[in-house]
Formats: sequence, structure tokens, C-alpha cells
Amino acid sequence: MKLLKDKILKDGIVIEPNILKVDNFLNHQIDVSLMNEMGKEFARRFKNENINKIVTIEASGIAIAALTSQYFNNIPVVFAKKQASKITDDTSYFAEVFSFTKGISSTIRISKKYLNEEDRVLIIDDFLANGEAALGLASLIKESGATVIGVGIAIEKGFQDGRSKINAQGIKVESLAIIDKFEDGKVILK
Amino acid sequence: MKLLKDKILKDGIVIEPNILKVDNFLNHQIDVSLMNEMGKEFARRFKNENINKIVTIEASGIAIAALTSQYFNNIPVVFAKKQASKITDDTSYFAEVFSFTKGISSTIRISKKYLNEEDRVLIIDDFLANGEAALGLASLIKESGATVIGVGIAIEKGFQDGRSKINAQGIKVESLAIIDKFEDGKVILK
Repeated sequence: MKLLKDKILKDGIVIEPNILKVDNFLNHQIDVSLMNEMGKEFARRFKNENINKIVTIEASGIAIAALTSQYFNNIPVVFAKKQASKITDDTSYFAEVFSFTKGISSTIRISKKYLNEEDRVLIIDDFLANGEAALGLASLIKESGATVIGVGIAIEKGFQDGRSKINAQGIKVESLAIIDKFEDGKVILK
Repeated sequence: MKLLKDKILKDGIVIEPNILKVDNFLNHQIDVSLMNEMGKEFARRFKNENINKIVTIEASGIAIAALTSQYFNNIPVVFAKKQASKITDDTSYFAEVFSFTKGISSTIRISKKYLNEEDRVLIIDDFLANGEAALGLASLIKESGATVIGVGIAIEKGFQDGRSKINAQGIKVESLAIIDKFEDGKVILK
């Protein structure tokens, strides 16, 4: 998606060998016009799939998911909540998600009330790298009996294996910008 | 706002003497159509104020803020990040926020890059009770030299003192639904 790629090249900052900081428009300050265009593009790529629910994870996925829903007839958005402790109860579905960036594992949770067998779910998130978050979401969505139709990502680190792990489960991945590599402190997009 | 009040009475659940659970449409599952109407209503109540930025706090405020921005010409939304530790650095503004619900204090943070003296800020949040979150946001926004024009709240607990504490700083509060009291396990709205 040209608009997002141009924005990454203009405002993205490479802060460590492999870290792209996009808090200017994606995950701290939010560019609402850009996210609307991203939502339209997700809708174009997942049309005719009869998606009836969007699932994301707090906090960075929420704005993209909420604005994207508008191009899917305002279907419900559910955001998984992160919790530090592993206390579980029988009213929620749970998954463990390991963050390589932060080096810690956390538990994510969605109430059983908001997922069911009729759901055809699009997972939305800001980044895809090793796929831990998306796979955690997919596992708890499947536990509910719902179907994961696809994963829509703003920025994918194309040199990591998240996409292949998700594809291996028969789930389609659509990313709006794919990082090919980092070179001399700059990001090279595919 | 009638639409929100009706939704609270229909789908809100009182789980403890003083806790209203609205995760069906506000802070776990998101009703995007309803939030768009809330955004229109905030725009109506804060028109002619030349607001040019919306600030909220992760995670529950993000969807309301992002959708509301659309009725303010897609102005930037900035969400404050919560962090467990009190590590500070000179690239961010910080505030301490005590949560009476959770019984813990947390640090919130906004990058200095995303607040400046020209900003006329509307703070948006899902709940207002004792006002800790809104006052924390207001203090770090003021530290940047920006002006806090108002606070827009989805659901206010009218029997707590958040509104009066915010008003005491000369800041206007607009809430779309105000809880008068809880009675016999039911919520009574003003």
C-alpha cells in the first residue's frame, strides 16, 4: 500500500539494528486519515470472505481495528486484554504470547461471550514479526469454535517467520507494508 | 445522549455494588456504530473550541478517541502509555495515576514530540469516577505548554468527585451518560 510505505519511509525511525519506530503515526500518535485508508485496503483484500468480526490485541491494534470495521459494515471489534498474571477463569479463553522485543511472556484473554461458532474472524494487528501475537489470538479464537479467515497486518518484518507459521495453519496473511531488510540504519521495503 | 443511555440500560451489567460492566460495547467488544455517534456528539459539544488534538489513555479510550477524531477533521490522536515501572527519561512527559478500582498506582507517559504549545487538547476517556486518569493526563499536557480545552467522557459516575476536581482547574467536562446511583443491583442514570 503506497500511502503507508511512503509514510514509513518519511516518518519511520530505525532505532536499533532491527527496530522500526512508527510512533509518529501508528502506535502512540495516530494518523486517523491514514488508518482509514488502511481499513479500506483491508476491506478490499478480504472482500467476499463474509467476515463478521474483527479481533485485535491491546493497545496498538485497537485504533486500526476500530477504523477498519467501518469498511466491513461496522462489524464488532473485540480486543484481547493482556494480563500479567496467569490467573485463569472459566469465563474467558486464554493464550500465552511471548514477546521477543520485550523478552517476556504474557497472557491474553477474550471473554467467551464475544466469540462463537458463527464467527468468521479477521485478526488485525500493527506488526507481524515472529507471529506470536497473531498465533496466540488464532489459538483462542479457534478454541471458541470460530473460524479465523485471515490476518491483516500494517507492517510485516518479511525476514522473520511469522507469515510462514500462520500460513502453515491455512490462514491467509495480508500485510500493507513488508520490510525486506534493514541496511545502514535505514529500512528497505519490499 | 439517549443512544448510549439506552445501551447502558439494555446491555450494562452491575457486577458489584458500584461497578458497571460495559464490556459488551465499550471496553472489550466495541460497538463501532455507537462510538461514531458518540464522536459526533463530542464534536457537537466542543465545536468552536478549535481543538486540534485528542489525547486519551490506553487501552479503553483508544477506540472512542480514534473514531471521534473523524468528527474533528481527523486531528491527531495521542494515547498515553501505561508503564509498571517508574523509570523516567527526558524524552517523555510523565504522570502518576492511582486506580481505586485496581488499588494500584501506575505511571503514564506521552512522548514530548507529540505535545506542544500550539495544541488545544480534548481529553477523551471511557469512564470518569474520581478523575485520577483525566487529571494525570491534564497535568502532563499542561507540562508541555499545551492547553486542555475539555474532557469528554462516555460514562461518568456522577456520585464521585472527578468532575468537580477537573472543573476546579477551569476545565470543562462533558459526559454522554451520567450514573446517578446504583440501587438494588441496577444502575440509575441521570
